[in-house]
Amino acid sequence: MRSSRLLSDLAKAFEFLPGIGPKSAQRLAFYMMDGNRDKSLFLSETIAKCVEGIQRCRFCRNYCESDICWICANEDRESHTICVVENPLDVEAVEEASNYNGKYFVLFGRLSPIDGYLPEDLGLNDLENQLVNGACEELIVATSMTLEGEATAFYLKEMADRVGVKATRIAYGVPIGGELEFANPLTLSHALEGRQEY
Amino acid sequence: MRSSRLLSDLAKAFEFLPGIGPKSAQRLAFYMMDGNRDKSLFLSETIAKCVEGIQRCRFCRNYCESDICWICANEDRESHTICVVENPLDVEAVEEASNYNGKYFVLFGRLSPIDGYLPEDLGLNDLENQLVNGACEELIVATSMTLEGEATAFYLKEMADRVGVKATRIAYGVPIGGELEFANPLTLSHALEGRQEY
Repeated sequence: MRSSRLLSDLAKAFEFLPGIGPKSAQRLAFYMMDGNRDKSLFLSETIAKCVEGIQRCRFCRNYCESDICWICANEDRESHTICVVENPLDVEAVEEASNYNGKYFVLFGRLSPIDGYLPEDLGLNDLENQLVNGACEELIVATSMTLEGEATAFYLKEMADRVGVKATRIAYGVPIGGELEFANPLTLSHALEGRQEY
Repeated sequence: MRSSRLLSDLAKAFEFLPGIGPKSAQRLAFYMMDGNRDKSLFLSETIAKCVEGIQRCRFCRNYCESDICWICANEDRESHTICVVENPLDVEAVEEASNYNGKYFVLFGRLSPIDGYLPEDLGLNDLENQLVNGACEELIVATSMTLEGEATAFYLKEMADRVGVKATRIAYGVPIGGELEFANPLTLSHALEGRQEY
């Protein structure tokens, strides 16, 4: 932007965020100056506070503001189930959608040697230690139905078998409320294969 | 978000931006913590600097970092044409697309009494003063082809007539490279009406 180097910098600073290209970044930068300076300043301060204050839970690796997250610190949560998810938003989603009362383990990724995601990057040795030394009886695997998600699920199943813990997977199939005709073929064939008596 | 009040605050702080709903805000908040803390901190600092440092040009009302913007301060720019645009991004667009060498006037909106945009809110008295006392000979009106944009153009035409300055409008029609069949009916009928001999 020619009108101001500062505004150019602001637009550039936005571009690292997902889904924000150069044009949207420019629009955001201008929008922030346009009668929204209080809110912009609040955003600026909150980002700084988060960068400073957000840590990772010692047990489940989820984001939190202290050494241990509120779920791992909660004595009322059952510690005999651990639900393994790929990222923190998955924890939010499960918490919002269900009354699951166990613990979590957040991988922050999926096994993918090509992209440099090895078991230790996903904290899988930590998880194995927890399975060996902890009270966990069931490992609920909730990784995504992608190639890497499947590889991760397979790795987790082997790990669970090795240490004598039951491994289960969440159900994959046609979404509730979804129309058969709109389900993608992979989902549909998976749903057919996974049919159950009722 | 249950995992952290700080992260919740961060997501909320994002929501005032255009095109960012609660879900995207949440995703952005998590993304910022995920190996992008340096960039996040840079964004935070740049926002704060802009909120502090960005002012409005005394003449054209565009954003700038001092009392007068680089275009108004530039002696090489012709002061006998003023191009009136709705917002700062329009200035950027004209600068990038053309070799226009005159000055600008940025309305920061369009006349719309219902929404509380009156002539004085758009700095139109300032503009009239500049027309009366300045060197301007041609007022190029580049407001949008909307109801309010048209009303604003009409107001500007009357103002220019009153003070004896020529008013012109940029051409509206089928975009260059656009296919006739994809032009919307309004644009197309306008293009037909505005046909010229060649």
